[in-house]
Amino acid sequence: MFSSIDHAMMLRAIKLAKRGRFTTAPNPNVGCVIAHGEDIVGEGYHYQAGQPHAEVFALRAAGEKAHGATAYVTLEPCSHYGRTPPCAEALVKAQVSRVVCAMVDPNPRVAGRGIKMLRDAGIEVQIGLLEAESHQLNVGFIKRMKTGMPFVQLKLAASLDGRTALANGESKWITGPDARADVQRFRAQAGAILSTSATVLADDPSLNVRWSELGETVQNSYPESSLRQPYRVVVDSQNRVTPEHRLFDLPGNIYLARTSLGDEVWPEAVEQLVVPAVGDDNQQVDLEALLRELAGKDINHIWVEAGAGLGGALLSAGLVDELILYQAPKLMGSDSRGLVDLNGLTAMTQVPELDITDVRMVGPDIRITARIKQV
Amino acid sequence: MFSSIDHAMMLRAIKLAKRGRFTTAPNPNVGCVIAHGEDIVGEGYHYQAGQPHAEVFALRAAGEKAHGATAYVTLEPCSHYGRTPPCAEALVKAQVSRVVCAMVDPNPRVAGRGIKMLRDAGIEVQIGLLEAESHQLNVGFIKRMKTGMPFVQLKLAASLDGRTALANGESKWITGPDARADVQRFRAQAGAILSTSATVLADDPSLNVRWSELGETVQNSYPESSLRQPYRVVVDSQNRVTPEHRLFDLPGNIYLARTSLGDEVWPEAVEQLVVPAVGDDNQQVDLEALLRELAGKDINHIWVEAGAGLGGALLSAGLVDELILYQAPKLMGSDSRGLVDLNGLTAMTQVPELDITDVRMVGPDIRITARIKQV
Repeated sequence: MFSSIDHAMMLRAIKLAKRGRFTTAPNPNVGCVIAHGEDIVGEGYHYQAGQPHAEVFALRAAGEKAHGATAYVTLEPCSHYGRTPPCAEALVKAQVSRVVCAMVDPNPRVAGRGIKMLRDAGIEVQIGLLEAESHQLNVGFIKRMKTGMPFVQLKLAASLDGRTALANGESKWITGPDARADVQRFRAQAGAILSTSATVLADDPSLNVRWSELGETVQNSYPESSLRQPYRVVVDSQNRVTPEHRLFDLPGNIYLARTSLGDEVWPEAVEQLVVPAVGDDNQQVDLEALLRELAGKDINHIWVEAGAGLGGALLSAGLVDELILYQAPKLMGSDSRGLVDLNGLTAMTQVPELDITDVRMVGPDIRITARIKQV
Repeated sequence: MFSSIDHAMMLRAIKLAKRGRFTTAPNPNVGCVIAHGEDIVGEGYHYQAGQPHAEVFALRAAGEKAHGATAYVTLEPCSHYGRTPPCAEALVKAQVSRVVCAMVDPNPRVAGRGIKMLRDAGIEVQIGLLEAESHQLNVGFIKRMKTGMPFVQLKLAASLDGRTALANGESKWITGPDARADVQRFRAQAGAILSTSATVLADDPSLNVRWSELGETVQNSYPESSLRQPYRVVVDSQNRVTPEHRLFDLPGNIYLARTSLGDEVWPEAVEQLVVPAVGDDNQQVDLEALLRELAGKDINHIWVEAGAGLGGALLSAGLVDELILYQAPKLMGSDSRGLVDLNGLTAMTQVPELDITDVRMVGPDIRITARIKQV
């Protein structure tokens, strides 16, 4: 059904789409290549919400050469008038003769309508080329569109024996500078960074993206002037965070997830979200409700950096999609602090299981990527 | 100094040497290739103690063609009359014109004498080609010859968060069948398998090599009739092990490391080793003394399979050379049992650090190989 030229063109479109990974949120990453056989006549990708879609850039570049060409798009062209006119209409106007889409747009406002618009205009449309790879470009967007929940990536870091701090709390420099730069790149791709008041009180972290730490490869294609700060979301069930903490002095929006409004005076970029309470004492933020609310605010992809408590609670509630675990080449011993609190497991059948999808060295540390098997 | 032909020939000799890895203990693994330029005229490897050395097999295969040839050997040819006449003498008699050795023999009975014997006979001798790779063939033999201590490999298996059992002790099937087969292959290469009475009392393990579990690749080159059982060594400071445990019903020799002789009646294959006692109560086997005694019994390479206690004690005492850590794609939580007991660490500077030398998937599990950085 698809030729090797088709494959090569779609791979190119996927590569282009990735260039938007730090900037398109909450929009999906999309790449587009327009070609006659092996000859690429135009290409483009979506760079930032509010700017033109991938197809528009590619069509502009192709000009009259789009006539009779094949357009390769990593996601179904849109069919609705948003901030830009529908791309399906633009492809029709440009008189391309064939459109190959990696996948149907999960956005219910599109969901096949773009394809129908093209076919109604007599354009040949094929779907499904490199669908898994294209899905991977937009795991958060797709999950949010399909379920109303964000994609949740839980970052953990520990010694080889799964410890995060000595019994007395000492924990500086568990992982090395390469792993910390890697974390910066993950943060930079997320819609929001989720943490807790416990972490803020203990470490007074910034929880932001520091352009200077993204590494040269990323910096070369992502100028500091385009830097997008993810939302910072702090679970603060007991209203313990105060405006004095460091994260409030830094650029970027912050949500404080609380069970009741506090009466502190917050900077403009800070918003208190009152979330339903759960737990034995009915005083804990309902994490599922919080995530659903964040998805409702167009947050596709959440990067969690917190302690054993939040990690364990998210895992126990089945709310984690992917684990990113850094392991430092150290052994810290059984009386050191654990990685995730999962209380009351009494049988191995209750243990969360994962599928490891990637293992690699990041400097002297190991990085393990694993999908949580949902029971 | 060495040509690409030299490299290719020594790589071949190393590959041959590995064929003996399950059987040569306590002798080193050695491979030999005899060639005129690119033409191999004879090759061989050491297969089993008491059988001829690698050079003898290679010379036999070469016959008259050894005359004027180059002999590539992964270890310096021996110079002493042992169970076989010295290989250096055999090479001289065969009138090879050049010998390339990967490394000098660390055995004090050889240690350069083989090379001298060759040079005295007018043969050109070169040393050091692929030395690191050849060293790797015999880490145990070399360490024992140089230090009087065995090479100690600590096997550990845990969940991704470093846990070996739930709080209630449940732990069945942490790692999968591929990891268990991998462990069998490591056991089969060791001179001894070291465990504890705590493990014997808890699990009643066999601690042996089961040919049926070695996997087809190994089985094809290692017939069941050649199966060598490593010594099994059980640290039993309080004389808690009894003749009823399963390991005593299986073929192979066993040492019980105790601080005093017990009065049980043991099968012939079992020997009680009385080892000096240490510890607060002066009732614990001195692990360093035990390892030294095992080296004195020609054991080069020890594979440790026990619990968090022995692993932690060996690490704390600086007695571990290499860690082999299997990680199952599971998370078991902070109240589950830990991997290694390292008590009383109060600063990150006291934490054992490692160099990760290999990370790979073994079925659904991860296997990490790491050298312990000795402080």
